[in-house]
Order: sequence, then structure tokens, then C-alpha cells
Amino acid sequence: MTITPPALSVFETLESEVRSYCRSWPAVFDRAQGSYLYDEDDHTYLDFFSGAGALNYGHNNPVLKRALIDYIERDGITHGLDMGTTAKRAFLESFQNVILRPRDLPYKVMFPGPTGTNAVEAALKLARKVKGRESIVSFTNAFHGMSLGSLAVTGNAFKRAGAGIPLVHGTPMPFDNYFDGTVEDFLWFERLLEDQGSGLNKPAAVIVETVQGEGGINVARPEWLRALSELCKRQDMLLIVDDIQMGCGRTGAFFSFEEAGITPDIVTLSKSIGGYGMPMSLCLFKPELDVWEPGEHNGTFRGNNPAFVTAAAALDSYWADGHMEKQTLARGEQVESALRAICNEHTQLGASYRGRGLVWGLEFEEPSRAAAVCARAFEHHLLLETSGPQSEVVKLLPALTVTPEELDEGLRILARSVRETA
Amino acid sequence: MTITPPALSVFETLESEVRSYCRSWPAVFDRAQGSYLYDEDDHTYLDFFSGAGALNYGHNNPVLKRALIDYIERDGITHGLDMGTTAKRAFLESFQNVILRPRDLPYKVMFPGPTGTNAVEAALKLARKVKGRESIVSFTNAFHGMSLGSLAVTGNAFKRAGAGIPLVHGTPMPFDNYFDGTVEDFLWFERLLEDQGSGLNKPAAVIVETVQGEGGINVARPEWLRALSELCKRQDMLLIVDDIQMGCGRTGAFFSFEEAGITPDIVTLSKSIGGYGMPMSLCLFKPELDVWEPGEHNGTFRGNNPAFVTAAAALDSYWADGHMEKQTLARGEQVESALRAICNEHTQLGASYRGRGLVWGLEFEEPSRAAAVCARAFEHHLLLETSGPQSEVVKLLPALTVTPEELDEGLRILARSVRETA
Amino acid sequence: MTITPPALSVFETLESEVRSYCRSWPAVFDRAQGSYLYDEDDHTYLDFFSGAGALNYGHNNPVLKRALIDYIERDGITHGLDMGTTAKRAFLESFQNVILRPRDLPYKVMFPGPTGTNAVEAALKLARKVKGRESIVSFTNAFHGMSLGSLAVTGNAFKRAGAGIPLVHGTPMPFDNYFDGTVEDFLWFERLLEDQGSGLNKPAAVIVETVQGEGGINVARPEWLRALSELCKRQDMLLIVDDIQMGCGRTGAFFSFEEAGITPDIVTLSKSIGGYGMPMSLCLFKPELDVWEPGEHNGTFRGNNPAFVTAAAALDSYWADGHMEKQTLARGEQVESALRAICNEHTQLGASYRGRGLVWGLEFEEPSRAAAVCARAFEHHLLLETSGPQSEVVKLLPALTVTPEELDEGLRILARSVRETA
Amino acid sequence: MTITPPALSVFETLESEVRSYCRSWPAVFDRAQGSYLYDEDDHTYLDFFSGAGALNYGHNNPVLKRALIDYIERDGITHGLDMGTTAKRAFLESFQNVILRPRDLPYKVMFPGPTGTNAVEAALKLARKVKGRESIVSFTNAFHGMSLGSLAVTGNAFKRAGAGIPLVHGTPMPFDNYFDGTVEDFLWFERLLEDQGSGLNKPAAVIVETVQGEGGINVARPEWLRALSELCKRQDMLLIVDDIQMGCGRTGAFFSFEEAGITPDIVTLSKSIGGYGMPMSLCLFKPELDVWEPGEHNGTFRGNNPAFVTAAAALDSYWADGHMEKQTLARGEQVESALRAICNEHTQLGASYRGRGLVWGLEFEEPSRAAAVCARAFEHHLLLETSGPQSEVVKLLPALTVTPEELDEGLRILARSVRETA
Repeated sequence: MTITPPALSVFETLESEVRSYCRSWPAVFDRAQGSYLYDEDDHTYLDFFSGAGALNYGHNNPVLKRALIDYIERDGITHGLDMGTTAKRAFLESFQNVILRPRDLPYKVMFPGPTGTNAVEAALKLARKVKGRESIVSFTNAFHGMSLGSLAVTGNAFKRAGAGIPLVHGTPMPFDNYFDGTVEDFLWFERLLEDQGSGLNKPAAVIVETVQGEGGINVARPEWLRALSELCKRQDMLLIVDDIQMGCGRTGAFFSFEEAGITPDIVTLSKSIGGYGMPMSLCLFKPELDVWEPGEHNGTFRGNNPAFVTAAAALDSYWADGHMEKQTLARGEQVESALRAICNEHTQLGASYRGRGLVWGLEFEEPSRAAAVCARAFEHHLLLETSGPQSEVVKLLPALTVTPEELDEGLRILARSVRETA
Repeated sequence: MTITPPALSVFETLESEVRSYCRSWPAVFDRAQGSYLYDEDDHTYLDFFSGAGALNYGHNNPVLKRALIDYIERDGITHGLDMGTTAKRAFLESFQNVILRPRDLPYKVMFPGPTGTNAVEAALKLARKVKGRESIVSFTNAFHGMSLGSLAVTGNAFKRAGAGIPLVHGTPMPFDNYFDGTVEDFLWFERLLEDQGSGLNKPAAVIVETVQGEGGINVARPEWLRALSELCKRQDMLLIVDDIQMGCGRTGAFFSFEEAGITPDIVTLSKSIGGYGMPMSLCLFKPELDVWEPGEHNGTFRGNNPAFVTAAAALDSYWADGHMEKQTLARGEQVESALRAICNEHTQLGASYRGRGLVWGLEFEEPSRAAAVCARAFEHHLLLETSGPQSEVVKLLPALTVTPEELDEGLRILARSVRETA
Repeated sequence: MTITPPALSVFETLESEVRSYCRSWPAVFDRAQGSYLYDEDDHTYLDFFSGAGALNYGHNNPVLKRALIDYIERDGITHGLDMGTTAKRAFLESFQNVILRPRDLPYKVMFPGPTGTNAVEAALKLARKVKGRESIVSFTNAFHGMSLGSLAVTGNAFKRAGAGIPLVHGTPMPFDNYFDGTVEDFLWFERLLEDQGSGLNKPAAVIVETVQGEGGINVARPEWLRALSELCKRQDMLLIVDDIQMGCGRTGAFFSFEEAGITPDIVTLSKSIGGYGMPMSLCLFKPELDVWEPGEHNGTFRGNNPAFVTAAAALDSYWADGHMEKQTLARGEQVESALRAICNEHTQLGASYRGRGLVWGLEFEEPSRAAAVCARAFEHHLLLETSGPQSEVVKLLPALTVTPEELDEGLRILARSVRETA
Repeated sequence: MTITPPALSVFETLESEVRSYCRSWPAVFDRAQGSYLYDEDDHTYLDFFSGAGALNYGHNNPVLKRALIDYIERDGITHGLDMGTTAKRAFLESFQNVILRPRDLPYKVMFPGPTGTNAVEAALKLARKVKGRESIVSFTNAFHGMSLGSLAVTGNAFKRAGAGIPLVHGTPMPFDNYFDGTVEDFLWFERLLEDQGSGLNKPAAVIVETVQGEGGINVARPEWLRALSELCKRQDMLLIVDDIQMGCGRTGAFFSFEEAGITPDIVTLSKSIGGYGMPMSLCLFKPELDVWEPGEHNGTFRGNNPAFVTAAAALDSYWADGHMEKQTLARGEQVESALRAICNEHTQLGASYRGRGLVWGLEFEEPSRAAAVCARAFEHHLLLETSGPQSEVVKLLPALTVTPEELDEGLRILARSVRETA
């Protein structure tokens, strides 16, 4: 007998049909700590999803929690718009000292509103203002957000259809390896730019993710990113790296583009920048691009000071030295060898894997297998999501603070779930 | 000798030129409680701005603060996407029991991402999807947000210019009293709709604020709102009330449209819905409009659970009975009589006032006077902002929890500031 | 027994369903002369439609016919793109000497392609280029053409729906007398322009017909046109008069705006400019607006030299003195008194009339009556069309060369048709 | 001493700066016959341009001229909108009997207005209406016209910039051989269509020229056209062949797509369809696509009856048998061998040639050489134009009625001009 769990009822009766994760994971979660969530019946779940990359430091990280409670206890400003506050100053100083200066990055910092899509909207506005052009180039399978500006540079046809208006001013180009290495990088893009008869509206900017998280864990090679950066310079286009999901150490280094040795003109950060999972985002850009008029872009919650507090604590605790980066790369190797073993075990499934740092994807020949694996993993209390245009990739996004033992536990559940659904 | 306060330096060197409030209020704020902020040198400021309406219950309201700290202490889920959580369920139940049911409102609830502009983007998407049309009608001097969808229905030319693309699919219509009562309500709008040769693209929806906060504290009459609601029904357009700034009791009743006795098809809420000033927003709509596919609109921070906790606490504490509404209306009378006195005192300034509940505007014949009054008020440690297309209106947005004494204090500073700048 | 006339069959089997006039007038026409058409069975029809205003000098005007045949006989260049030709030079010289100089009009002349919509497209491009803005203001019930640029500033909802894309960058404003004189002229338009919060994208230009032919024979008063011209100057917008249907003497003077004493920045001419009904159009603009690069706008048939020949002959024959203008005004009075009589005779029909020169409209309370009158007139062998958003107006467009007797004949048929359908 | 030729003066003082051909060919032409033009001083010019392909039957072709004069003499209807006329019926019957039936083509015929761009606008509207989508795919270096709909699918950046608004709803794809055969045909296009995450808005239709005339005489291979046709069927997109310049026998067969054995869904014809160089165009489509409402698209000059007369005469005279096609292919071989000789003679210039039927291009390594060759040819009284995004190709478009001797004369002048500018 199948019964609707009574505990879910208000979600089903009152909340919109738009809800999605709660359908894959039919539980009511209550508490969380580090890599674990607990539902209201005290079942334990190992989290390899990390709030879609917003919880790089794990759930309710104790160091940040202490700072947060202290701040709330002492009545630190909660909501500050873009007023000067001590919490914001502390964050800015940490960001400058711990992140920008050691990397010799010249960026100005903008608080565009606390969500990723707001940072992307600000980046696109700024690029268009600076260059005086409307067009933006994005890449196949890109994901940049759900508000109309961001959605126009997002690839997913289902999400795009939700816009209700034709999405224009964006043109997709092939992401790295889109043709499995058979076509020269940027052959099409560069030719369109150079050919005065191509019909391409000259772009103000190119927006790219170094690893496409929603798009299927597609990893751009450093040399591809460097070539893109050069192309942008040569063709007078700004390079925007959307580091919302892959920044804050997800791929090893703090910024995902560091490995490639490039300096994008504009960078968006969100998700894990706040450290504790509270809404916060940044838009960074080279000082010469800071042509904003005061108040030209704004937003009520752009001064979410509790997030500034946990953000600063996260930077100070985890990024003052190179330990976090090394650890992430080491954990990544642990994931890689487990995925290799899975693929070797099931050659008949045509499985392959790919990733960087602590973001990995496992893909099967048969697209629907990924969802089956995730569903089985949930039965074993491991939270895993799919990604890719056909949800054909199992996506692994454990916390960066995951222990080797937790990682091992999750990878074993994954292997078992693959086996059981093979 | 003028010196740059050293304490501001990192804001000036690192933060983008886009920052604005910190320019009007050159202080570094540290703590806040109720109607007061404290800067790092422990100066006290009375707050008649309330985070642009996001702090209706005052800064760091102790009831909400207790619930928030308890939740954090016990490791309640912080970041939950749209997973089912106990905190979300508690909020939904409170919202249903305290807000929707007593008002006989049939809405489904969507968490579209934690900012106001995200709620507006979701509302516009949904309206376009339901009606299969692109066009939206907004009103002169409307403000709905800074992402491209919301910006297209926002009136301010300076903000619009920031888009960097032509803003289309929106058409402005005259807000209530735009012609000082000399033109029949909706004469132009209705005629365009009825005339098959008018050139107006048939709108999917109309989006309106009952009181335009950013637009200059323009108050729509209940009969105008009712006529608009009727027009929408007659012409098969959805009515969206953007109650982000005016909802949550700002005008007296929980929803600002209650006074008019209308039931909009879609309602957006944000700012004070979270109670404590943390990012949260809602999009409400009639059940028959809930045609979203799962995941068709999403956003990383749409499950900001600490905000759900403070939101539920605010509803339970302040809205279980009619006390808050009555108190707000009483405080509003106190403001009104003070403004009347100011206008009477300075007839030569051509001053006028308007408002509802606890949102009021004071306008002068000479537009620049408003900024001068606010600047002088800041010197007397009262935070006041301007609004309107030329910043020609002094805007009063005290916390709904302001005491009569605090209100009196602020109103006296205002009167003095007017006098000193007259 | 109803039979499909066999003669129509290839139209019905081969020609697209888009055909329209042939449905109202089910005959196969063969020859034409002056105000008369003859079908293949030698029935005679009196023409009060004049090719939608393209035959101001009547069908196959003998003076022009002579010039045309001579030109063809001597192998004058037929198709000349924008090469210099003797026929084009002769036209330019006539246009300068007969039209521009005597009126002290400073215009440069562009041949934008031989159709009206091409002239409008060129005018809009030029205005946008000069002002660097995208938005154009048009008027309720405007008609400017069917290509996408022109269609976006056309009012008719049925025609607009044919675009297949949302038509943007245009905003309609109320044409003269849209509110029967109850609202001050330009109240709404001017207020939107002056209010920085109105949400109106600042227009590059305003495009207007002095009399809206397709829109229902709506006649703008000279003082309204003057006020519009002043508004354009004050607000830095270009004024485009689309004189395609109303120019070339239709309202009396050669240009329909002469009566108002204004000098538009840009003027479009087509329809009767070629004289003989062959495709030709012009875009005129003040010299300081001539910022086109060579070839920036082009078109294969912009050098339709036979039309230049008949155009020059028409100018030389009819516009060297003021006779044509006087005659048209006199004929107009003849029409007006006949229409007055019809309205007086049928007060129960709520009929009204309006017009200028030789363009007149007769409207009935019941919109469908206009089509019935035209259908009955056709049975009496008078060609009459309807106009207006609901086809509610009988439109009278006799040739300017119509004789008083022909005019009288047609007006009597009209009166009879009204009577018979009353 | 340089003097402005007095004969040019009115062009320079009165005509807009937009004029272009008259700059390359500074003469004032007066008469024309067959392949020759004569200026007002009776200099003779051999025409290898043929009105940009509008004069396939030569200037003032005597057979058509006779029919035209007869029609005018007998007062045949000149201007007929879309009324049924005997001239139109005769044309439709000829078109059906001579063109459509023998080729087993099922098309309905629409008269969309007399210019090519109007036919393209109609085709795009219809495709969008049928499919309910906005997006159209065009090809690199496409040219489809100057009105906003056509311009959005045209490649040339200079022409596009003239629009004054961002041109959207179109996406360019690589034309045949865009990468010199190194990339598989449709690799990029097909992948974008199949990938639900590509970001390509699903197109309503694809518009293509079989040989790009303005784009540089780029010839699509029959197998590429067949693959495109198959792709359109597979992906539910309509295939529009813009045969405005390449139809009417330019490439040999009447339709340029016959060689490939495909049947496009929609075909546009203009330029030479009228035969005599007078404005006329057609939009053809499969009967099941004829979803137009009566009058949904219209245009004043869509019934240019003199052009119907010459069009029918041209069909009857030249297309009743296969002679014209054979002759064109033979003449094409004559051109090809002359171009081969030129290229062989000047290997140091890196010259290459390409073409089909009687449309050929000669390209040099150094782009500016093409203009130099054309300028020199003009000095030798041969009219030749350049094409391509950098005007880097000498374009040969002699009349299809050119004699072998005339062809030889022109090709010798061309060879000499290349030699003299080498």
C-alpha cells in the first residue's frame, strides 16, 4: 500500500508545483551538520550535493556558526542595504587580504543583490554599458540563472521556454570539447567575428563557466580558457567568468580560473561565498570597468550582513594558506579513482567520468540510468543529483570539508547504487 | 580642513562606485536595535527608513532573534533549496493559518529566490505562460526591480538606461491621479484595449503597486484599484500586485490591497516577509494559475531556512490578531498630523504630504529641497531617504514597531530639518 | 443556383488565400481610363478607390501615357538601380523646381526602393541612426506598412498579429481627437516625456499621418500638427510625416502638411508620386540628417525609371501652378455637401462624415453597415472600400482628376446604396 | 584642373548620400538595349551586371517591349492591387503551365508587394505563423534585403548596423564550404538542434540562397542543399529558398534549386521574374502552408500589371522549352574557361573563380584588387561590380540573352583589366 506521507501534505497542498528537489528526496529535513542531514524522524543522509555548491564548508560549519551567533547575539546590523557597516568592512578587508592581493587580482567589488542571478545580471549590464553593445556570447549547456537577463545566456531549452518571451541578444558557441576534439577550438566563433558578413552581432562580452555544473560537468581545459581569453582581447570583448558554482575552492584554487592563469574582466561569485549557505553574491571587475553611476544597479538585500560575517570567517579560516586547495585536490583524486573503478566494473554500461577538484560527473550511455542511480542512492541515504540537458550525468558535489572516510562511504554507496541498477 | 574618514577607506578603494546609501549617510554602522542604529563610534541614529521597508518589525527584533538563535544553535537546516524542511513547513502552516485563511485568500505559494526582483521575474514569467502573450502593462513611476524582466516594467529612466539593451514588452499607463484628477481613470488604457487599431500589444498582465514607494509615495485610491481589477477581468489580463514594499503591514492590513477589497491573481512579497531583514521572497497566485512544471523556475537560495524561522515567528507574534493593523493606523495618524503641521508652518514652500499606514511622503515645490532636508536630518541623526523621479519627496518609513515617543522624536527632527533648510 | 464564375478559377486555385480586394469586387478587370475601369465583359465601373490613393491622376492618364510610351519606344533605361540616368535627373529637377523650391523646402531626396513600406523603413532607420535611440512613437490607428519595421508602428491588431514576432520599439499615442476633444492635446505624451519616471523609452522620432486613411479617415487639425511639431522640437525628437497616401495633392496642397505650416524633419512619399500607378517612393529629409553612408540602405528596384518619367510628367503637368490644389478643394466641397445630405437624410443611422480635399469618410453607428453600403455600391458598379479598425467607415478616394459629373454620379450611387441598405 | 561634371550636379546636390552605384560608374545613362547601355553622350557600355540580376533577358528586350507597349496602348489596367485582372490571370496561367506543372511543383502563389525584400518579409511571416516560433536560421554572408525583417537574416555587418535597433530572432550558420571542407556539413547546426541544452531557440525556418550573390558568389553544392532539406524535415523547420537573384534561370534551370532535386517549402522570386526590369515579386509556398487570412499581408503595388504582362511574355518566350537552360549552361562554360585562363595567367595574384550557369565570381588574394579591376573595366566601358563582405570578388552577371560574341568581348576586357591592374 502506497500512502502519501502526511508530513508532506502542506507542501503538496500549498506550495506551487514548481518545487523540484523535494520530489526526488521525499523527506522532511530538520537539522544538518558537516556532510550530514537529518530528517524529522532522525534518519541520517550523507550529502554529496552541498546545496548545489552553496555549502562548500559543509552544513552549519562550527567555526562560522560561532561567528554568526556572536554577531546576532551582539545585535550586529542584519540588514544594511549598501550602507557602510563594520561587518562589510571586515569582509572587504579579508577579501582583499586573503583572496585578491595574494593572487595579484585588481578587482573592484560590487554587492549586486544576494543571489547568483543578480550577480550575472549586474555583470551583463556592466559589460553592455562599457562596450555599448547588446550582444553576449555564451556557451552550449551554460547555466547562468533564471531572471530574464541570465536566462537569455542559459542553454537549457526547458528553462528558456519558461521565459514567456523570445530570449534574444545572446548567441551560443560550442563549449570546450563540444565536438569531441574533432573541430579546432573557436574555429566557428573566431571566423564569425572576423568575417564582416557573418551576421553575428558583435558581442560586448563572453560569459563562461570553467566547469559547467548544471550543463553536465563539462570541464574546460586550461588551454581552451587561455585561448578564449586571448580571443576576447583580440576582438575587444570582455571576458566574464561565472564562478558562482565553481568558485570558492570547488575546483581546488579559490577561483576556478586560476589554474588557467587568466584574469577575466568580470567575475561573478555567489553560492559558497557567504560560507554558511546564506544568500550573498559578488560581482568583481577590473577597476577601469567601474563606470557605474551611484545606485545605477541596486537591490534591497545586497547588504546581508550576517552573510558578510560568515563569509569573512570562511576566508580567514580556510584561505589564509594553501591547505584547502591541496586538500581538495587530494580528495578529488580519491573521487576519481572510485569513479574509475565503477567505470571499469561496468564496461557494458558505457560509463565515463570527468571532473576537477571536488566536482565530478558520472555519465552512462543510457541517459535515464543517472536518475535511477540517484534514486537508488537516496534509498541508501546518499543525496546525489543529476545534471546535463537530459539529466544524464550523476553529479558529485561533496563539501570541501568532507573527510576521507565520509567520501569513501558515499563513493561506496554510489558504487552499490550503480551495481543495483545495472 | 576636510578629511576623508579613514574608516571609510576600504569602501572607497575596493567597493564599486555603484554604492549609494553610504554616500548619503557617511557613517560606519555597527549595531542596531528596534528603531535605532549605532555606528562604530557609538553614535545613535533614529531610523525612519527601515531598510527600504525590509525591517517592519524593527532591527534585530528580540522575539525573532530568539527564534533565530535557537534555530542556529540546534543546527537547523540553513540552506535547503526547495527540499522539504521542518522550518519551511512551519512557515507554510503559519502563513496559511495566520494570513491566507482568515482573509479567505486561495493562493498557492512559490519560493522564487530570496529577493524581490526574483519574485517579480517569476510573476511575469507565470503570467506570460498562462496567457501566451509577451506584453505587460506597468504604471508611471513604478519600481519593480533591477534584473532585466523587472527593469522593463520599472519607470525610472536612469535605472532603465542601465539595462544596456532596449527594454521592451512593457507599456506604461498613468498611475492613479497622474493628471491630478482631470482625466477619467483608465480612459487611455481602456480605450487602447478596446480599439483594435490602437497598436497596443494585448497585455498578459498588469503589474501595480498600491502605493508607489520608490516612485514618490503615490497612493492609489481603493476605487481606482477596484476599477483596475475589474478592467483586468473584463479584458482577460492578470492582475499582479507587487506588495514587496507595501505588504507585510506597511499600510495597515497585512496585504496593502485588502483595503480595496480586491483579490489579485498574483502577489509578490519580499522585504519584511522574512521578519528579521534576511533575504526571502514569495510569489503567490491563484491555484488555477499554478501551471509551472517542476523546476521550470528555480534559484539556489530559494530555501533560506533561517528566514523561514523568523518569518514564521513574525507572523505568529504580530499577525495572529488585529492589533498590529490598528496600531499602524494609529501611528499613521500621528505622522499625518505632524506632516500637516509642517506644511501649514511653511506654506511658502508649497509643501504637501500623502501616505497610508506608516508610509508617508513630504513633497516640496522645489524638488532639491527634499535632499537638503534629509541631509540636515542626518546631521541630527535621523535616517530619512528621498524618493520620486527627481528625488523630490522625503519618504518616511519608520518601523511598524516604532513607539509613539520614537515617532515623535523623529517627526520633531524632521520639522526642525525643514525649518533649518527653508 | 450559385456558380463560381469560371473566369475566377485560376485565382482561386493558384493564388494564395491572402488575396483580399478581389473578394469584395468579384470581377476580372481588363482596362481602365480616368475614373473608370472595365471588366473583361466590358462592364464599366466608376472608381472611388483610385488604387488606395496611388492613382490621383486617374487610370492611364493620357498625358503621362504619352511620355511613358515615348520613353519605352526609344529604349530609355528601364531598370537603373541608383545609377545616374537622364530620366532620374529630369525627375529630380522637376521635383526641385516644381515642388521643393516654391515651397521653400530644403529636403534631400532618397530613393529607398519603390514601395511605401520601403520608404518608411528608410525613414525609421535614418531617425534611429541620427538620434541613437530605438524607440519610435506612432499614433492610434496608424498604418505605415507591412514589413517588420513599418508594421511595428502600425496600429491594426490583425495586421500586427501577422508579424509572428512581438512587435517592439514602438509606442502608440492618441491621435488627434481620440477622446472627442475631452482631453487636452498631447497631455499624456508630453507628460510621459517630461517625467523621468514615466517608463517611456525616449523616442528617436514620431511618425504621423496628417489624415489616417486606413485608420478610418481621421483628420488631424492643423493646430494639432503644429503642436506636435513644437513638441518634437522641444523634446529633441524627429518628426516624420508619412505622406504616402495623403501627399501628392490628395488633401489639396501637394504635401498634406502644408496647410499646417510645418516642416517635418522626414517625409515619405509613394503611391501617387509615380503618377501612373507604377511603383515608386521617396524619402525626403532635411540636409543635416543626410548621414547615410553610400549603400547603407539599398534595394534592387529603387531606380524604376519609367516611373521617374511619368512622375516628372505629372509634376510638370499638374503642379506648375496652383490649379490642381484649387480644383481638389472645390471637388472636396462637392463631396462634403453630398455626404451632409446623406447624413441628414438618415439621422436614424447615426451617420457622420469627415475629410479633407478629396479624401472622405462616412461612418455609421452600426459598424457593419459600411461594408453593406460598399457591397451594394459595387452592385451599382461603384468601387468603394471601407477603412477603420472595424471596417466601419466608407472611404471615398476619387481621382483628383475626376470631373464634377463623375463625382456627382458616384455620390448619387453612394446615396442610393445607403438608402437601399438602411 | 578637376571639375565636377555639370551633368551630375543635381544628383550631388539633391540626392541623398546613400546613393552608391553612381559613384562607381560616373556616367549619366540614357538608353539601353540587350547587353548594352548608352550614356547621354552616346558612349556605349557592355553590361555584365544586369541590374543586379533583374535583367536576365537583357535591357528592353524587344519581345517583352512589344507586349508592354501593346498593353499600355490599349489602356490595360496599370495598378490593380490584388484585384482580379486579365493580365494577372494570364501571368498565373503561364506560371502554372510553363513553370510549375512541368516541374511538378505544387506551389500556391502570393503577390507580396513588388520588391524582393517584401517577398522575404512575407516568407518569414508565414513561416513564423505556421510554426508558432520566432527564430529563423540564415547563413553566413546571406543577403535577403533591407527592411527590418529581411535585414535581421542578412549577414553584412555594415548593412546590419543601419538598422538602428538590435537585430534579433535570427541566428547565422555556416554556409557550404565555410571552412573549406574541413568541417562536416551541418555539424554545428545539427548538434545545436539536437542538444536540448544548446541555447539555440528552435527555428521556425531556415532561409538560404543556393548561390550567394551579394555574399561573394558562394555556390552551395547540390548534396549540401539536399542535406539541408533533409535536416529541415527531420527537425520540423521550414526550408525557404530565396531565389530572388539566382532564380529565373540565372544558374541554368528556372529555379536554382532544381539541380539539387529538392522542393523547398517556401520560395521567393523577384528581380527577373517581371522580365523587363519592372518591380515584381512572388512568394511561393506549399498549399498546406497557405494559412494566410485575407489581407493579413498586403501592399499597394502588389498588382503591378505591366510587370505581369512582361513576366508572362518572358515565361512564354523563354521557358516553354529547355533551350534557355541549355544556352545558359553553354555560356557559363565560356565564362568558366575565360576565368580559368585569367587565373592561370596570373598565378602570382592567387586568383580563383567559381560560379554556376551565368553567375561567376573572380577572387584575388588581395581583396582590394577586385575594386581596382572593376574600376579599370569601367574605363574600358564594361560594367562589373564587386561582391563579398570585403568587396573582394569580381561578380559576373551578364544577361542570359548575351551572345557568345558579347560574352567574349566582356571577358577580354576583364582579362585586360586584370592584366593592367596586376
